[in-house]
Amino acid sequence: MPRFFMAGDISGDLIRIDGKDAEHIKVLRMRPGEALTICDGKGTDYTCRLLSTKGQSVEAEIIKTAPSEGEPTVSCTVYTAFPKGDKAETIIQKSVELGACAIVFFPSARCVSRPEGAALTKKCARWQKISEEAAKQSGRGIIPEVSVLASFESALAKASEAEMPLFFYEGETDYTIKQALETKSLYNTVSLVTGSEGGFEPSEVLQARESGMLISSMGKRILRCETAPLCALASVMFHTGNL
Amino acid sequence: MPRFFMAGDISGDLIRIDGKDAEHIKVLRMRPGEALTICDGKGTDYTCRLLSTKGQSVEAEIIKTAPSEGEPTVSCTVYTAFPKGDKAETIIQKSVELGACAIVFFPSARCVSRPEGAALTKKCARWQKISEEAAKQSGRGIIPEVSVLASFESALAKASEAEMPLFFYEGETDYTIKQALETKSLYNTVSLVTGSEGGFEPSEVLQARESGMLISSMGKRILRCETAPLCALASVMFHTGNL
Repeated sequence: MPRFFMAGDISGDLIRIDGKDAEHIKVLRMRPGEALTICDGKGTDYTCRLLSTKGQSVEAEIIKTAPSEGEPTVSCTVYTAFPKGDKAETIIQKSVELGACAIVFFPSARCVSRPEGAALTKKCARWQKISEEAAKQSGRGIIPEVSVLASFESALAKASEAEMPLFFYEGETDYTIKQALETKSLYNTVSLVTGSEGGFEPSEVLQARESGMLISSMGKRILRCETAPLCALASVMFHTGNL
Repeated sequence: MPRFFMAGDISGDLIRIDGKDAEHIKVLRMRPGEALTICDGKGTDYTCRLLSTKGQSVEAEIIKTAPSEGEPTVSCTVYTAFPKGDKAETIIQKSVELGACAIVFFPSARCVSRPEGAALTKKCARWQKISEEAAKQSGRGIIPEVSVLASFESALAKASEAEMPLFFYEGETDYTIKQALETKSLYNTVSLVTGSEGGFEPSEVLQARESGMLISSMGKRILRCETAPLCALASVMFHTGNL
């Protein structure tokens, strides 16, 4: 069933869809009577029947209201040091598919790429668009926010607020993600912090530990910077029964 | 420490490195006395000291011999229906990083891409090269073989030989990868079968079930065809203590 995020109003049993989603419905040549899902972007799905596709907007009647099935039971935020090239786009697309609730980029000592100013503003808009597309395609109930923090310190401050705050470091050889996830039986919020191509400086790892992050390994293989967050996210979703 | 797969001979405590790896060592400007790891591609790592870099080949002295740490304890083969574009390359690169022992492509009813003849031969050579690069970079002890099967039936026949034969189908809503992996406490071989962009036909799912595959879900979100095998592989590695 075609799926859209709300870009209009609900009044009673009716949803009005405006803008590009209305255009998209017309491009798909959907006709009155056909079914579609409209998600409010806050975790609720409306199963609807199309009423009219005339004019600028499109009208649909709500048949069923239910929590979005695509939302995991755990809120997992991916924090990644700025990677090079278009790897940020891969990380965003796949993280949204795998169930991340937000994606945050930040600078670290070994980052080669440090987008700023107008270039960063442009990138952010593009990144948010990729999140939206991935959320639609994978059936998410929210559009995960993509954001940027100005410093490593601010990333640590935010990431360490989670009930399960994980910081991945390839120099950590003893404490695994599995051990970390098994330390508590219940947690609603998870942070997954991963590095850029060059990894983290030992001094950054120390800082992370001092701010309360659990320094963890993801096994003996060296994962690329765009693979690590996806592996961590899949592990969390598997472990918490969201796969 | 730089890492190479063996492309030469061992005699006693000496390894002779030929061809492009010898050239690579020279390009890296490695000098006699420097340390490097040479892997035999069969799961053994030799920590070596470079002796000489003169002439066509390079000589190194073996200091330590040990099983490759990058090899997981479980042999997990990724079977994927031919995807479109360059997604096969992403699947290979990331599967090798995540610990797959082999990657197999096969045609299925809804495949749009079906490479054949000379184009396929060329692709296979390129794919194997990507596996080798990823194996070096991630510290694997083997170079996972990338191969192609001629039919869906032959893929099922091979995949169903594993002790844990998983077939992922988005139409399956009850039986999860977690339930499947928890049915046995011990298994050495795992098959992960995933579809192309269009997924599988119900008749193919029936065929898979009849051949002994466990039809499983990977959660409520719809994963792209290049994301599904990586999510499954990360889950298996997490579950079996290889992360």
